[in-house]
Amino acid sequence: MREGDLHALIAAGNARLPKGVMIPPGDDMAQIAIAGGSVLIACDQVILGRHFVAGTPIDLIARKAIARNVSDVAAMAGRPIACLCAATLPSDMPEFAVLALTVALQRHAEDFGCPLIGGDTSWHGEAGHPLQLSITILALPHASGRVVRRDQAQEGDVVVVSGALGGSFGADGLGHHLRFEPRVRLARELVDRFGDRMGAMIDVSDGLGRDLDRVAQASGVALLIEGDRIPVREGCSIDQALRDGEDHELAFTLRGDAVHDVPATLAGVPLTVIGRARAASDVHAVGAQVFLAGAWHAMGTMGWEHGPRAGA
Amino acid sequence: MREGDLHALIAAGNARLPKGVMIPPGDDMAQIAIAGGSVLIACDQVILGRHFVAGTPIDLIARKAIARNVSDVAAMAGRPIACLCAATLPSDMPEFAVLALTVALQRHAEDFGCPLIGGDTSWHGEAGHPLQLSITILALPHASGRVVRRDQAQEGDVVVVSGALGGSFGADGLGHHLRFEPRVRLARELVDRFGDRMGAMIDVSDGLGRDLDRVAQASGVALLIEGDRIPVREGCSIDQALRDGEDHELAFTLRGDAVHDVPATLAGVPLTVIGRARAASDVHAVGAQVFLAGAWHAMGTMGWEHGPRAGA
Repeated sequence: MREGDLHALIAAGNARLPKGVMIPPGDDMAQIAIAGGSVLIACDQVILGRHFVAGTPIDLIARKAIARNVSDVAAMAGRPIACLCAATLPSDMPEFAVLALTVALQRHAEDFGCPLIGGDTSWHGEAGHPLQLSITILALPHASGRVVRRDQAQEGDVVVVSGALGGSFGADGLGHHLRFEPRVRLARELVDRFGDRMGAMIDVSDGLGRDLDRVAQASGVALLIEGDRIPVREGCSIDQALRDGEDHELAFTLRGDAVHDVPATLAGVPLTVIGRARAASDVHAVGAQVFLAGAWHAMGTMGWEHGPRAGA
Repeated sequence: MREGDLHALIAAGNARLPKGVMIPPGDDMAQIAIAGGSVLIACDQVILGRHFVAGTPIDLIARKAIARNVSDVAAMAGRPIACLCAATLPSDMPEFAVLALTVALQRHAEDFGCPLIGGDTSWHGEAGHPLQLSITILALPHASGRVVRRDQAQEGDVVVVSGALGGSFGADGLGHHLRFEPRVRLARELVDRFGDRMGAMIDVSDGLGRDLDRVAQASGVALLIEGDRIPVREGCSIDQALRDGEDHELAFTLRGDAVHDVPATLAGVPLTVIGRARAASDVHAVGAQVFLAGAWHAMGTMGWEHGPRAGA
């Protein structure tokens, strides 16, 4: 079972959606028309044993649960406005911990500009079952109305990534993934600055390889990445930068004539041009490919696969 | 740990919410202003071992997950427009079952008028951990703009309940709770017919006792219920009708002068007048109370408490 199969099944249902659904399943958020405007909405979850390790401070579990949803908003260049949390708690979770979790969720949601406006709390029926938080986030499009999708990369675009990548989870599971800053301001300033020259965008949640391949597949282009340009987090390998998830940096494309206008940093975040979008050809099929050690490598299988760990 | 404590903590955060939040946490759904209009939003979950038993057909698990959210929409007299699903799957869930679940979620969401527009799928990190589905539902208010809240019961209101209550889960866990019809049409027709004479409304998810007490507490009134008027499902006891959750009928109040206009059925659903709202007094404190076997009984502790089963 692979998440890709599920996405294909969901995409097949998209044909039946009413036309008020402006962005259907398949992007970082859905967009739906409401009362003369529109709203962006997405949900994402964290589960003990998958997204955080036992012993992670409750405050950082709550922060991550909210922040990864805020990062989805950044990927659409939206503005977070509210969130909801469905929590499933271990049956023996102490009362002080439940209250601390609630306070932490409220505080981080407020800090990220998306106050908690609803939710549901349940307890597992059996002991030993893991803490799980599902966050739903609501957002508004950028003030210009522009929503940046993942399927809008075009031949000739340059590919840019923010920050540095790799090793986010950390050897002990307590790394950068618990403290990353969602790139909401960067995304807004990108649209302010580049407007219609913005192509596609995604947040790097499952690894640069897999996420850039999603952009390429959705857009029907080849993304050709120069491996030695990829910004690698200090102490990490290029392999980690390509494969590790949870960095929550932004990867995006700009129309080719913007290549000379890409600033070294924007909203305080370094930007690096790492490649180009090309039309698919006999040499380069649709997808993301990276040039490393003298050869091209398909990027789509590099990175975090959401299927079961045991390979079921 | 009691869900009530958590709700109190969440309510304390309500004071800090921006004024675009028209209905804060504490009702069946939140309401938030968007683009000159507003949207209703809520999330609710189902977990193996809490909300359904092992061996429940996948199609009915999906149906229940969607239907209980649609019932929250009914409780506000809203119209469902879209939903999202965050699923946490057992690590050994077979591929055919995952695909069947996805198809079932899509189909029921479409049937209930709220097509699936997004979501997230994760697998548990360890074997033996339970299937869990969190659904977020989006809805629009009734065409008149009226949203029926749970805190609007007034002295003199009559208390009405739809359908018949009790035994929904079933001795084998495969009862009515898997097949109930959310009362969206009934709620709409109630607002069509009674307009400003509608008081408060809630869906009976945690038992008539507990849910009517929530209406009473939120509204600051005493709800005085005549036990022998409560419509009991065939084969069930009055105790079950008061305590069992998951009926998903509507309990609501109408201004007192509407008592003679309550039809025997509306939208094909029987309606029963079961009591009155009174100002709190030395005799009857704020809360719901039922007269049974010659005495008054507080209803707030009757019904489904969401805390851990083992009493932790």
